Amino acid sequence: LRRLAITLEYDGTDFLGWQVQAEGRTVQGAVEEAVRRTTRENIRVTGASRTDAGVHAEGQVAHFDTASGLSAERIVPALNHYLPGDVSVLQCREVGGGFHAQFSAISKLYRYRILLSGPPRPLRERFVLREWRRPDAGAMAACAEKLLGEHDFTSFASEHSEVENKVRRITRSEVTADGDELHYMVEANGFLYNMVRVIVGTLLEVGRGKMTVEEFSEILPAQDRGVAGPTAPSRGLALLCVRYPDGGDDSSSAQVKEAE
Amino acid sequence: LRRLAITLEYDGTDFLGWQVQAEGRTVQGAVEEAVRRTTRENIRVTGASRTDAGVHAEGQVAHFDTASGLSAERIVPALNHYLPGDVSVLQCREVGGGFHAQFSAISKLYRYRILLSGPPRPLRERFVLREWRRPDAGAMAACAEKLLGEHDFTSFASEHSEVENKVRRITRSEVTADGDELHYMVEANGFLYNMVRVIVGTLLEVGRGKMTVEEFSEILPAQDRGVAGPTAPSRGLALLCVRYPDGGDDSSSAQVKEAE
Repeated sequence: LRRLAITLEYDGTDFLGWQVQAEGRTVQGAVEEAVRRTTRENIRVTGASRTDAGVHAEGQVAHFDTASGLSAERIVPALNHYLPGDVSVLQCREVGGGFHAQFSAISKLYRYRILLSGPPRPLRERFVLREWRRPDAGAMAACAEKLLGEHDFTSFASEHSEVENKVRRITRSEVTADGDELHYMVEANGFLYNMVRVIVGTLLEVGRGKMTVEEFSEILPAQDRGVAGPTAPSRGLALLCVRYPDGGDDSSSAQVKEAE
Repeated sequence: LRRLAITLEYDGTDFLGWQVQAEGRTVQGAVEEAVRRTTRENIRVTGASRTDAGVHAEGQVAHFDTASGLSAERIVPALNHYLPGDVSVLQCREVGGGFHAQFSAISKLYRYRILLSGPPRPLRERFVLREWRRPDAGAMAACAEKLLGEHDFTSFASEHSEVENKVRRITRSEVTADGDELHYMVEANGFLYNMVRVIVGTLLEVGRGKMTVEEFSEILPAQDRGVAGPTAPSRGLALLCVRYPDGGDDSSSAQVKEAE
């Protein structure tokens, strides 16, 4: 058996998220079906991140084991032939047996897009949260910076988060302007359930003047989901890339894709 | 009666184009229906450009006359309330009775997006033509430049073009790189039926090495649609803006929106 790592792009709008469920359309399910039709094997495909319903990906990574002799290069068009139009395999590479899409990852980078527009914008509506009133981006940026470093993110995770250890290390957390959009870029060694969306929902409370920067500072130490803001809608969120150690167990597993 | 000019954004994918037809979903039909529900009047809405099926707009302009007393500012959310998700009114302004969305326009700016990618890219597939082999952008840019100025564009128009005078003046015609995309930007005082798509289809023949720059130079003088390349698919095309004379019959009719 060989282990292959694939990089995926998808429009999450019409999926119930990454993870296979008893019923409904999932990205994992679509990819496993494409792998099955390509290799004629029933294979589990393991993703780096279990993105939620409606969340997009420009660089999700997943791995699977196969007995197929198809080259990594030929796997890409073969899988894409069987995948629906809203998922695509961008790359495929052989990795060592020790590589695990989720556990080998050293960090994941997400972007949340906030579009500053009163009227709807049909060309971007699937990929942004639209704010008709211009928020205070400076205050939001100041708060975003306060999340840098290692913290217990209990306050910023869904109450349905089941992991015990809620300490994560955020290495990038910034609000930047991009034309008529604000982007929240966040990179961490791991994320709790709904963590980016709760952070964005809370940053927006600050941006809208409903919460002060001082109040924001008190959220992390409170370790209480109740004091943070609402969970922002999933459609503004995209997983941009997953990073793996360079020269790890398999050098080809280095999967570094810079965000644009 | 007042005359109002509206600026529209739409995703052309699920429309049969701008113009109302006996059957099927059109942008003009959707806008007229929204105007009817907002003003309770049956009003013809006249667009600057009759965009084809699948062509998008970031700044289409249209005008209509109404007895409604609603302010231009309040017309925007009212119309958007009744419009489907793939069309939106971005702006509305009062214009003089001499303003005509099509005939007052001094130029229109279109962009055609070519995505350089082997695998499908679900997040952009509705808005780009995908080229899996990198075309010769330098040769394409050289050809694009040759179209500048006033010419008879018979060779670059659909044979179904019904206008008699096929002379148009192109003031911008350039191929530029934007990340992993090539953009063809073209501005002219008017366009023949399918003109941008035939130009792009022909530029791509050059980019793919199937036509030389010299051969391209012979197309305009030939005045023969048969010597140009195929018509590129509509989905890569968007009408970015329509320009009107500043300080014309109505100064508020100046509708200059710079492309990003």
